[in-house]
Amino acid sequence: MALVASSQELLAWDELTLLPEEASEHRGRQLAWLACRHHDLLVDPRLQSWLAELAGSPLIADAHCAAAINVREMRRQRERHVRLPRRLIEELASVTTLAQHEWQVARRKNDYRHFQPWLDRVLVLKREEARALAEGPDLYAPLLAEYEPGLTTEELRVLFAELQAELAALVPELVQRQAREARPTERPALLRGSFPQLAQEALCTSIAADLGFDFRRGRLNTAVHPFTSHLGPHDCRLAIRYDEGNLREALYALLHELGHGLYDQGLPTEHYGMPAGEAASLSVHEAIARLWENAVGRSLGFWHWLLPRVQAAFPGQLAGARPEDVWREVNRVRAGVNRVAADEATYNLHIILRFELEQSLVAGDLRAGDLPAAWNERYRQLLGVVPASDREGVLQDGHWAAGMFGYFPTYTIGNVLAAQLYAVASADIGNLEDQFAAGEFQPLQGWLSSRVFQHGKRFTTSGLAQAVCGTPLDSRPLVSRLRSAGADRP
Amino acid sequence: MALVASSQELLAWDELTLLPEEASEHRGRQLAWLACRHHDLLVDPRLQSWLAELAGSPLIADAHCAAAINVREMRRQRERHVRLPRRLIEELASVTTLAQHEWQVARRKNDYRHFQPWLDRVLVLKREEARALAEGPDLYAPLLAEYEPGLTTEELRVLFAELQAELAALVPELVQRQAREARPTERPALLRGSFPQLAQEALCTSIAADLGFDFRRGRLNTAVHPFTSHLGPHDCRLAIRYDEGNLREALYALLHELGHGLYDQGLPTEHYGMPAGEAASLSVHEAIARLWENAVGRSLGFWHWLLPRVQAAFPGQLAGARPEDVWREVNRVRAGVNRVAADEATYNLHIILRFELEQSLVAGDLRAGDLPAAWNERYRQLLGVVPASDREGVLQDGHWAAGMFGYFPTYTIGNVLAAQLYAVASADIGNLEDQFAAGEFQPLQGWLSSRVFQHGKRFTTSGLAQAVCGTPLDSRPLVSRLRSAGADRP
Repeated sequence: MALVASSQELLAWDELTLLPEEASEHRGRQLAWLACRHHDLLVDPRLQSWLAELAGSPLIADAHCAAAINVREMRRQRERHVRLPRRLIEELASVTTLAQHEWQVARRKNDYRHFQPWLDRVLVLKREEARALAEGPDLYAPLLAEYEPGLTTEELRVLFAELQAELAALVPELVQRQAREARPTERPALLRGSFPQLAQEALCTSIAADLGFDFRRGRLNTAVHPFTSHLGPHDCRLAIRYDEGNLREALYALLHELGHGLYDQGLPTEHYGMPAGEAASLSVHEAIARLWENAVGRSLGFWHWLLPRVQAAFPGQLAGARPEDVWREVNRVRAGVNRVAADEATYNLHIILRFELEQSLVAGDLRAGDLPAAWNERYRQLLGVVPASDREGVLQDGHWAAGMFGYFPTYTIGNVLAAQLYAVASADIGNLEDQFAAGEFQPLQGWLSSRVFQHGKRFTTSGLAQAVCGTPLDSRPLVSRLRSAGADRP
Repeated sequence: MALVASSQELLAWDELTLLPEEASEHRGRQLAWLACRHHDLLVDPRLQSWLAELAGSPLIADAHCAAAINVREMRRQRERHVRLPRRLIEELASVTTLAQHEWQVARRKNDYRHFQPWLDRVLVLKREEARALAEGPDLYAPLLAEYEPGLTTEELRVLFAELQAELAALVPELVQRQAREARPTERPALLRGSFPQLAQEALCTSIAADLGFDFRRGRLNTAVHPFTSHLGPHDCRLAIRYDEGNLREALYALLHELGHGLYDQGLPTEHYGMPAGEAASLSVHEAIARLWENAVGRSLGFWHWLLPRVQAAFPGQLAGARPEDVWREVNRVRAGVNRVAADEATYNLHIILRFELEQSLVAGDLRAGDLPAAWNERYRQLLGVVPASDREGVLQDGHWAAGMFGYFPTYTIGNVLAAQLYAVASADIGNLEDQFAAGEFQPLQGWLSSRVFQHGKRFTTSGLAQAVCGTPLDSRPLVSRLRSAGADRP
């Protein structure tokens, strides 16, 4: 199963980075064939009998041992798949491959109508999947469970509602405070300028290596949308995009994907291909990515280390800038229409909006044809901004084209958990920012490795929060961190 | 089977272009799994019964129709595979993946001893394969038949002996004549200089497009060793390497791989995945590659078209050069130690040498430990040069690491057939060089398409020569072409 899944991963990775324009249809067929092979292995009666045989075995008496993790997770995956018809598996793989291609075309042409029939096809299939898996009337729950097993839609609504209420007060407060604190001499948009792509690639490669990414076991590539893929025990690939007029685009995409990459490279390879060797959940994966992107990458200490490197890589750019200036800039709160480029506070409003809309789409309360209007209206209400075009609005993300309904919430769950984890790491290790300023990232990486990565799938997201931080998921550390980020120190 | 095979192709392509250093072992396992799946489908009793059912069918009464081609070739592949144990298929896929990786390491370190145990392992497996397939005592024959079915070792020995005899006289004659004709004002090594890789990539991309390569259905990448991969009906990928001090390296690799690419893109896509949609043979594939590389790329007309483009891409380089100067240079005959960089005449001696050595290796008359000495000694005898190191000598090609014994002859068979085909194309179309000078490559491509590409696997190599040129394989057109290439015109 690991050989099948990792082959699927490579074909999907290639699709997003290198595949020629006309080759999508055949790629869809290949991926559908592999998805069916994977399904066949999961529903194979032999697997059922092996799992049954292991049910009362002393081998899994300790619920936290690798064997017990593997048996529990294989059973969960198996139970999911026996409810899904093989035809649906095949069709989902092939339709989402084509839909992703058509999404890219629609985005390039700024033409939502080009994409709409594909979103419709994906929705029909995902609703069929949800109906086959659902335990009650909530069709969103089984899709969420694909990414975040153990978390109910209701728990998520409560967590997000609390956070939304905090942000409603906090965001305007931060905007006002930052306007008040801005120095008259401060230049706006320090990270805008002229940054040739080749030099950006070289800089990103060296940052990744310095932060601990092992290039003998991975790569850094270019893609339309940043992503990370785990293709084998020693093959983790980061992909980011570059904007020659704005260094921020590549830099923060790199730090985010690097977080994913450090997690993948830190998993116990002796368990590769089994749940004990896999990441706890997508939310935990996002937590690690957001931790490196935000807690590390938006800290003042980090910019003390990074700024001279950026200045050396781009002579003439950021001349005379101080670490404080850039640090203040990358922590500036300003509502915008783009999720990936959002500041750390408003980012979560982008997610809450998608969480709402995808629930409505899956429930059938919102039709694909009405999505752009609903999208723009909610942006106006939640963020006070309206996208100038569908390209900048509803077409900005490819998740729904890929059939990934229930995925978006993992970003904000990740933000919540990242703040919890970072608070404990700070208490355990000491002054992390001084270490970053000295280019020392290994202590943090080591802490994450022993506290998170080495556990594989031992814990659920909430279970991990409990085990490492002593509390379940809790948005307070995130709110408290947002309140102080970029603020003048006493 | 086409889905399995094209997935294998992508995994192998990725291995040669992008795979991280430590990831080879897992890639070997993936490829072994896919090779076994492919084998399982070929030896499936259902295929046997379908083929039996079709044996006397009117559907294949016309031996030249697509169905008949498919049945004939599927039967041949099946008969081959039923003789091979599944374990051998698995081991060959995994060992050759690792051996290719270790060959690259050995080449980088100039350390043949590092590679030798891997060559030994590959040889053990290939000899086992040959024994399982052999009809008589000749173990080389079944390996050759993998690439060139229908051609016996003895026929090949005769063809190569004739050519070798001609070259023994011709090469010194060409060297002397070229020395006599060289103008005192001629600068040596016009294609050496300063050619930044990015500009080379841009030039190669535009040449490929102008010559007819469709980038919506393909790509151009970088690899340690130039190669072309056909990953799907609309996904053909060329890979070449660049030398910033020598434009010739990338340029002629491009023209060669482009020939392969134009063939793959010219195959009838309605038969994709079946023999009627596949290239006739590797030798015919090489013929097309060598035709574009040599008959087109080393012609004076072509340089009339290309030279201003090169000069525009690299201001200051080749300043004041005339097409005649570059044309004479790229046709200069000079024995060297490198196959890929060899001139068109001595190239075949590199192949004849490999053909001899690989027969000895497979027969067990030559041991892997004695290979470097034998290699160097035969270079001295046949070409009058001795490699300065194993990196420049026996480690220059990765074919044997990949288990491709019997592949090298296809290059020279390709040269022979290319000259035959080009002579007929010239007679049919008229003055091709005038067309090249005007940037018109479509007439030649159209001719090749209707006479060669569209046939799929209808003909064997020799059958195609007979059908298109009216003779079987014949080295005389090649010898005649070598005699006049780069010579002053009347």
